Amino acid sequence: MSGEPRTIVCKAAVVMAAGQPFEIMEVNVAPPKRGEVRIRILYACPCHTDEITQRGVDPTAVYPCILGHESCGQVESIGEGVTTCKPGQKVIPLWEGVMPLDNTSRFTTKDGQSIYHFMGTSRSDGFMSLFGLISWLSAASHNTPWCLRSALPLSRMIAPWTNLGCVGLACVEGAHLAGAKEIICVDINDIKLAMAKDFGGTKFINPKNYEKPIQDVIIEMTNGGVDFAFECTGNTTVMRNAVESTCKGWGLAVIVGIGEAGKEISTRPYHFIVGRQLKGSVFGGWRSRDDVPKLAEKVINGELKLGKYCTHRMKFSQINEAFDLLKRTECIRCVMDMQQ
Amino acid sequence: MSGEPRTIVCKAAVVMAAGQPFEIMEVNVAPPKRGEVRIRILYACPCHTDEITQRGVDPTAVYPCILGHESCGQVESIGEGVTTCKPGQKVIPLWEGVMPLDNTSRFTTKDGQSIYHFMGTSRSDGFMSLFGLISWLSAASHNTPWCLRSALPLSRMIAPWTNLGCVGLACVEGAHLAGAKEIICVDINDIKLAMAKDFGGTKFINPKNYEKPIQDVIIEMTNGGVDFAFECTGNTTVMRNAVESTCKGWGLAVIVGIGEAGKEISTRPYHFIVGRQLKGSVFGGWRSRDDVPKLAEKVINGELKLGKYCTHRMKFSQINEAFDLLKRTECIRCVMDMQQ
Repeated sequence: MSGEPRTIVCKAAVVMAAGQPFEIMEVNVAPPKRGEVRIRILYACPCHTDEITQRGVDPTAVYPCILGHESCGQVESIGEGVTTCKPGQKVIPLWEGVMPLDNTSRFTTKDGQSIYHFMGTSRSDGFMSLFGLISWLSAASHNTPWCLRSALPLSRMIAPWTNLGCVGLACVEGAHLAGAKEIICVDINDIKLAMAKDFGGTKFINPKNYEKPIQDVIIEMTNGGVDFAFECTGNTTVMRNAVESTCKGWGLAVIVGIGEAGKEISTRPYHFIVGRQLKGSVFGGWRSRDDVPKLAEKVINGELKLGKYCTHRMKFSQINEAFDLLKRTECIRCVMDMQQ
Repeated sequence: MSGEPRTIVCKAAVVMAAGQPFEIMEVNVAPPKRGEVRIRILYACPCHTDEITQRGVDPTAVYPCILGHESCGQVESIGEGVTTCKPGQKVIPLWEGVMPLDNTSRFTTKDGQSIYHFMGTSRSDGFMSLFGLISWLSAASHNTPWCLRSALPLSRMIAPWTNLGCVGLACVEGAHLAGAKEIICVDINDIKLAMAKDFGGTKFINPKNYEKPIQDVIIEMTNGGVDFAFECTGNTTVMRNAVESTCKGWGLAVIVGIGEAGKEISTRPYHFIVGRQLKGSVFGGWRSRDDVPKLAEKVINGELKLGKYCTHRMKFSQINEAFDLLKRTECIRCVMDMQQ
């Protein structure tokens, strides 16, 4: 042991207010308190969930904050009572239960202004204050097999309803691995539809090619609707489409995307009365300590092709460029090296 | 056998168009076709589901039609190939799978105009044409233990969110029998709230006594929300309240009421992302042939107090009065004798 952990100074990408670009600045990171762990972040990926908070359309957003929630790193120091990990261990911080236990922040600006955490997994240039060890893995991102758990058991078919970004494609892959017979991919971008084939998609629909509501197209195509529909856009109209594209009796629509502030999902209650269900999914329903090691094993064994999602690499100092890349069709995930 | 069944003439309460009162008239009832059963209805109860169709606010309604779906009777004759029942047997027609197999009607006016069935269980003065035997039972109504099936397993508490009519009270009783520890009853009518105590309710809330949204009251009262919320009104605002009164993580809201035409349920997608679910329930999810005999046994054994729901009795000729009674607080169910 090198003694008690102390406050350290790191570089972090801070969003000072809604709509502001990422500003790389030095921040103070307080030492981990009882039950908490401080992690040196090695790699991180920008995600649309960060981006909608940066833009200011996430209804739950608070500022200033350090965004980022897809990362991996190494335990730097541990607080009192932590027995689940040791300094030096490789870990993936996850969303579930990773905010400081006392609901305060461990981040401050050099001037002492408090900075909010984001999804409990805020990224700084090297260190984060978190409680609890999640799991270990040397790869870059954790959110690949989104939906594997929600999708079981798959009986007939599935429609990942999505702009086929990382989450949508992971949803396709998850459905494929779970044994879905038909995987209908929906996107208004033909390039993304073509990509989806690589991940296990079997049918491809571009709503722009149809004059009627896309749920009507799917109901006809499947002779009554799909068993599962995953919405991966955050668009409330698409959420409605997803509900209404599932079959009567047992159809399940799953909201995966984060809706914009003030937007609501609406539909006729009749759709539920006749047997449909609606639920949401965060991190695919995976439990961090129990499930992520199983996912890690699948990546190591080559069952999950994590590398397919990592289309670009950049330095942390290029963070604003990395977020611009997200808007471009050919980018699924850009891995940032936090040491550069 | 008394030979082939023939068309018979019966009295029926017909709604000729939306908003029209029930008109008792003679109708022709065609003989049962292959796989169908014709039933002499002995007793029937008016229900709000009939009433919203009579008023014209059910989006799926078609006219003219013979309403009614809560009844019991005796098999009058059977079509070719029917092996599950015999003439004379006591039966309860249920909604599930009881429309004529060929999607046509067995009812016509004396002038030959076709009359629609309603929920497959239309009531006439003595005879109905249905396919399939459901079950037998000499009592008057079948919809008591609504929700027993949907409610299991009950872990913490349940809020049957309801105007405590027959369905709402049955929901309370179902939750009680299923072992719910706390049963929160919500109604804007104090008399109904008092009734709910008899059926197993443990807490009673009248939204008129609060200035804030009732879901906020429930969230506070339960320290985070209920495990299950059953909406039994058909009011889309109450459906939203029900969703938003369930707890994060696993809260399940169940829509039981039939929404009015053109009305939609809306809520923030965030409520689902954090773990809530929404589904519907028809006939409590019971399967007719498999489950209703089990319910009948519970009534016969005294486990289900069906008699408590039958607050009034009338003659079939008083059908319009019976429907007026539905609007009065003290009436739960009015049993009509179809022979009078």
